[in-house]
Amino acid sequence: MPKKIRLGILGGGGDSLIGILHRVASQINDNYEIVGAVFNQNHDKSIKFAKEIDLPTNRIYKDYNTLIEEELKLPKEERIQVCSILTPNFLHFPMAKKLLENGFHVICEKPLTTTYDEAKILQNILDNSNLVFAVTHTYTGYPMTRQMREMIKSGTIGKVQKVDAQYYQGWINPIIHDKSKRSSTWRLDPEKAGISCCMGDIGVHAFNMIEFTTGLQIKSVLADLNYLYEDNAMDIDGTVLIRFNSNAKGVIRSSQIATGEENGLSIAVYGDKGALKWEQENPNFLYLLTDNKPLQVYKPGHAYNSKLSLDGTKLPPGHPEGIFDAMANIYLGAAKAIRNEKYNSGEFPTMNDGVRGLNFIESTVHSHKQGNTWVNLK
Amino acid sequence: MPKKIRLGILGGGGDSLIGILHRVASQINDNYEIVGAVFNQNHDKSIKFAKEIDLPTNRIYKDYNTLIEEELKLPKEERIQVCSILTPNFLHFPMAKKLLENGFHVICEKPLTTTYDEAKILQNILDNSNLVFAVTHTYTGYPMTRQMREMIKSGTIGKVQKVDAQYYQGWINPIIHDKSKRSSTWRLDPEKAGISCCMGDIGVHAFNMIEFTTGLQIKSVLADLNYLYEDNAMDIDGTVLIRFNSNAKGVIRSSQIATGEENGLSIAVYGDKGALKWEQENPNFLYLLTDNKPLQVYKPGHAYNSKLSLDGTKLPPGHPEGIFDAMANIYLGAAKAIRNEKYNSGEFPTMNDGVRGLNFIESTVHSHKQGNTWVNLK
Amino acid sequence: MPKKIRLGILGGGGDSLIGILHRVASQINDNYEIVGAVFNQNHDKSIKFAKEIDLPTNRIYKDYNTLIEEELKLPKEERIQVCSILTPNFLHFPMAKKLLENGFHVICEKPLTTTYDEAKILQNILDNSNLVFAVTHTYTGYPMTRQMREMIKSGTIGKVQKVDAQYYQGWINPIIHDKSKRSSTWRLDPEKAGISCCMGDIGVHAFNMIEFTTGLQIKSVLADLNYLYEDNAMDIDGTVLIRFNSNAKGVIRSSQIATGEENGLSIAVYGDKGALKWEQENPNFLYLLTDNKPLQVYKPGHAYNSKLSLDGTKLPPGHPEGIFDAMANIYLGAAKAIRNEKYNSGEFPTMNDGVRGLNFIESTVHSHKQGNTWVNLK
Amino acid sequence: MPKKIRLGILGGGGDSLIGILHRVASQINDNYEIVGAVFNQNHDKSIKFAKEIDLPTNRIYKDYNTLIEEELKLPKEERIQVCSILTPNFLHFPMAKKLLENGFHVICEKPLTTTYDEAKILQNILDNSNLVFAVTHTYTGYPMTRQMREMIKSGTIGKVQKVDAQYYQGWINPIIHDKSKRSSTWRLDPEKAGISCCMGDIGVHAFNMIEFTTGLQIKSVLADLNYLYEDNAMDIDGTVLIRFNSNAKGVIRSSQIATGEENGLSIAVYGDKGALKWEQENPNFLYLLTDNKPLQVYKPGHAYNSKLSLDGTKLPPGHPEGIFDAMANIYLGAAKAIRNEKYNSGEFPTMNDGVRGLNFIESTVHSHKQGNTWVNLK
Repeated sequence: MPKKIRLGILGGGGDSLIGILHRVASQINDNYEIVGAVFNQNHDKSIKFAKEIDLPTNRIYKDYNTLIEEELKLPKEERIQVCSILTPNFLHFPMAKKLLENGFHVICEKPLTTTYDEAKILQNILDNSNLVFAVTHTYTGYPMTRQMREMIKSGTIGKVQKVDAQYYQGWINPIIHDKSKRSSTWRLDPEKAGISCCMGDIGVHAFNMIEFTTGLQIKSVLADLNYLYEDNAMDIDGTVLIRFNSNAKGVIRSSQIATGEENGLSIAVYGDKGALKWEQENPNFLYLLTDNKPLQVYKPGHAYNSKLSLDGTKLPPGHPEGIFDAMANIYLGAAKAIRNEKYNSGEFPTMNDGVRGLNFIESTVHSHKQGNTWVNLK
Repeated sequence: MPKKIRLGILGGGGDSLIGILHRVASQINDNYEIVGAVFNQNHDKSIKFAKEIDLPTNRIYKDYNTLIEEELKLPKEERIQVCSILTPNFLHFPMAKKLLENGFHVICEKPLTTTYDEAKILQNILDNSNLVFAVTHTYTGYPMTRQMREMIKSGTIGKVQKVDAQYYQGWINPIIHDKSKRSSTWRLDPEKAGISCCMGDIGVHAFNMIEFTTGLQIKSVLADLNYLYEDNAMDIDGTVLIRFNSNAKGVIRSSQIATGEENGLSIAVYGDKGALKWEQENPNFLYLLTDNKPLQVYKPGHAYNSKLSLDGTKLPPGHPEGIFDAMANIYLGAAKAIRNEKYNSGEFPTMNDGVRGLNFIESTVHSHKQGNTWVNLK
Repeated sequence: MPKKIRLGILGGGGDSLIGILHRVASQINDNYEIVGAVFNQNHDKSIKFAKEIDLPTNRIYKDYNTLIEEELKLPKEERIQVCSILTPNFLHFPMAKKLLENGFHVICEKPLTTTYDEAKILQNILDNSNLVFAVTHTYTGYPMTRQMREMIKSGTIGKVQKVDAQYYQGWINPIIHDKSKRSSTWRLDPEKAGISCCMGDIGVHAFNMIEFTTGLQIKSVLADLNYLYEDNAMDIDGTVLIRFNSNAKGVIRSSQIATGEENGLSIAVYGDKGALKWEQENPNFLYLLTDNKPLQVYKPGHAYNSKLSLDGTKLPPGHPEGIFDAMANIYLGAAKAIRNEKYNSGEFPTMNDGVRGLNFIESTVHSHKQGNTWVNLK
Repeated sequence: MPKKIRLGILGGGGDSLIGILHRVASQINDNYEIVGAVFNQNHDKSIKFAKEIDLPTNRIYKDYNTLIEEELKLPKEERIQVCSILTPNFLHFPMAKKLLENGFHVICEKPLTTTYDEAKILQNILDNSNLVFAVTHTYTGYPMTRQMREMIKSGTIGKVQKVDAQYYQGWINPIIHDKSKRSSTWRLDPEKAGISCCMGDIGVHAFNMIEFTTGLQIKSVLADLNYLYEDNAMDIDGTVLIRFNSNAKGVIRSSQIATGEENGLSIAVYGDKGALKWEQENPNFLYLLTDNKPLQVYKPGHAYNSKLSLDGTKLPPGHPEGIFDAMANIYLGAAKAIRNEKYNSGEFPTMNDGVRGLNFIESTVHSHKQGNTWVNLK
């Protein structure tokens, strides 16, 4: 009977999106227990946040070096087994390196490091260990990208001949056109974000999605990037021509000035027998196109999906996973009420809603049974 | 600094969908800690399941009466504060009644009870207490149904004049046409499921969604149900004409023989100034129609949404909440690897994916900077 | 070699939508030639309109009685063979009656007449003739409604068990809430429009679409209509419960106060083996749902469609029929230029657009052939 | 009062799609009358086709030189005024040249010619004439591409900073992988189709759509094309990086091996204040995105559209232009019946459908008026 894995967290405190995402994800399958953390470089804030989420504070450390030292003093069966690195990019490398060197498994946000050379160093260390290292290219976890991978692997679309991936966002648009904003945004500062903004932050997701779904390796690239202003050192848009071995070609389109786009990651893979298309903003639909049959739309949870896809599906067909969050909102509303905090009508359905429901059900059956006549609700 | 609320769970063991849904939802906002449970009427199974999800077994009880008795012996600051009832419908009433009578808050699956009379009894007990009682009409927790409610309340569509709600599923289709299956399905047994199958199970969700979003009460109903076979005692399809006070009218359409439909809950509310439409299978889109302006599509997380909607949104625009689950699938893959269990390629992105990513980013910038030429990846 | 059929037109002059629709439709397959007409009850307007569309005026008559009398004097091989009736509803009956009695075929807008009794009289006359009588339930002419009919006939979805048809418009919303407007709209005047506004104008289309696609007859109805105001004598909204022979049931939902809806006709037919769904506002998509296979989307022009569907398709897959109109707009722009009328940039692509195109094509191939380098357009 | 313009047609006989498209389009606005033609290089076939569409054969000529010579002999008020050129590409140049030199207006299919040099020659001739020359980039005729152009011109999305156009088809996929088919397809023969297949046939439409909607000129291109097989001389896929003056950049993606794609032309234009997106396969929807307001969906026929868009709209909102064709199919069915040709049930709605309709309408009102009870249809 498996015990929960002991998880440490570096970064991701406060209302950090990435912090929430990793915490929730680690709880969903009952596999992990958070036992230690450095949520913030400011130790007081770190402690404060631990209390907010009701975590014991004795293993909230002041920095990652301390975390490693102190945890190594604990008996192995109590010690953190794996650490999630959720810090700004430039810290990934030193943290991951020291964790691996001291025998900790690592779950690391992307990009892995800020340079290829650093990445190779980590790979070398890992290769000489028995440790697990996961990079959170989150979109590969969707049931339908997994299904896409398995269908391509099984030959459904034949030999890949064209690939088109897009990752369009518009969030930097109001920043880039404002001189003071663009000089004070860390994503646009090479010191903090590495050599690329658009390609490093999101183009690389499109790249990864191509290699994940097709199982192919991209052999070469030709890129045209856009910086828009001369005083801006970082690409905020670009198109990359790509070539695979064989005659397959393709394109990666990526932008942070695609005004109004939210998180427009999509991929289309065309083979000689068919094609598969997927969009992140409607992640539960996978489209299969062929030369001469009706378009087919695959959805999660159906028995026709592959094992890899079904293993990643916890809900029956027709239930978007957002329902976890919808239910969580109701639990949140109830928690406020239980704690006697202020809450508003609509935050959770009450007894009265339940009573109305029974009134409806009985009235409905009554109306039918007496020959389709009107029945008043009480 | 709030401590987590101590949660007990009745039902929902094994691979019960509703069990997973409530467990995940209770963890998402760091508000609840599961401390006790009766997961199954078979105590051994209950214990076994607790071990599977790495829960201490000392507060896994043999039945709900024992749970209540034993928890009452504990000091108040250790005792279960609230119980979630996830059992079959006919157990909701006795469990909820006893919990309320002994001072426990309750979170109860719908339908609240199997009869209106039982529901009224519970309401009476609650009215004479200071307890919290939530009925999990989950769909009211979506950011965009909350936004719909707030927009109607604020007058965006004017006075409601027509309402159309649908809840179409097809799951009972292969059962209803098979005589032996339809006689052995508990949902079709009035003893276990109450007087209605289709209206009781899903029609009531459509009903609740109407009252939740419009803030109006349905005054009377006229129903035509369908049983398809003479030896079937339970409705598996039906249409309900509805009337509100004033001249507003509408319809609730509900079916479990809408072959091929998955979880097709949707609602359209038409006012004299505009209309709002929402569909559960694409829950992040809310449509505003007016007489003479372009159709507007509202999405979660934007500042233009109401507080009630934004409070229920944890992710930035463009991120479907399914991303929690996608990330969870990656954590699951990593957990298998950390535990040295068997896993397959594709279950989580590895160091190698991270290294490839850096290779891509650097090659892309390199290609651009040297005048848009081809660069080979290593 | 067939000669074109000689067509007469009653009504539909000026910028009448229905007039444009019938004129264009009659030309599309090179089968009809318009030879005579009464476009308007005002003879001068009728003549003026004939000149506008460059039709000889010698067979533009002052009323339908004159048309019939004069045409009968012509030799049979010159005489109008068929008349299209595009007038207000109450004129359908006398016109159709007299045409049939004098040996003319008829193409008649719906509703056929204003009362069932009149309709039966026409049917009797027709039954004792060899004439052709078409009622223009236009939506049955779409390739995908025809495909739907043929698939149901061939057993694709098994035995029909539930039908849901909708026809929602919002156009009467700004009228109905304005006392003076609602008292001066002919559609709301029983003298001119018959006993029903919403059911008579659009509900009947939904009804027809059900019988057309399913091949079944509706046996009985139960209706709840809405008039909204006491001084309004005509239904402007309603829901109709329907029953077929056997245990199949369904619903027709129809409204003219569904604010913001444009022409929302849709139909879903659920059988015991599958379901088919179609929407008028996206008429080129037909959805096939089953218990356990991916959703399939049928589109016009593919070889997998039935003969009835393919016979009604003139364009290859992916070309919406709106392309006829797009091309017509370009011809219109060119006509203005040819006639030396005023026109604006953008009304048709010019020589310059053609030259730019060649410049693009050659530059593109040039760029590729010289190793993917930049080429300036001239 | 304008007389119809006298139109001649070169090419487009038999069941040529492009022939049908131009014939229908020329009739739609009552502006043109076809008076002469060379439908086919085989004169007998040309005559035969003229008879099929019931056109007088005295002005069906054996070739375009004869057409020009003979028409010049006719008095000016009878003579063809404008000729549509619908032949294979390599004939566009000689035909257009001679027509212009002899004073005929020209409507020419794209690509204008097979080389840029030829195109420049035509342009020179035209510049020294008073003639009209239209190139049928059909997609610029859609109401919503016109609306897009006008909105960009009026500043709705601010300064253009990124453009992405796609034209994906899959039709050449089954041909390109079959050695004998690919060597016998004229589109893949440079002698007949010019220097490019994919860019020349469809890439150029995407190019034109960019310049049409943005009002900008593309300054330079960098292309990577795909030929897939060494024995194939013509590109069947490619991606083109594009640059405008200023810092705006973009991409044109075009393919004929995008397996399963039908006619996937789409365009997205991103400005610093907003973005506009349009797709040919759903041509009645234009999407406006901004940084912080709900997505807006524009549709044809609404008063909020520009004059250029409204001038190209003949139908009220919610009516796809395919309704012209749906109605034409009913006229076709009636024509078969009138001519006593064989036709099948479903080809047009009959008297019986009309009678059923009245029966429905009256029963519905009856049911409502007697208190929502069941009424049997007769």
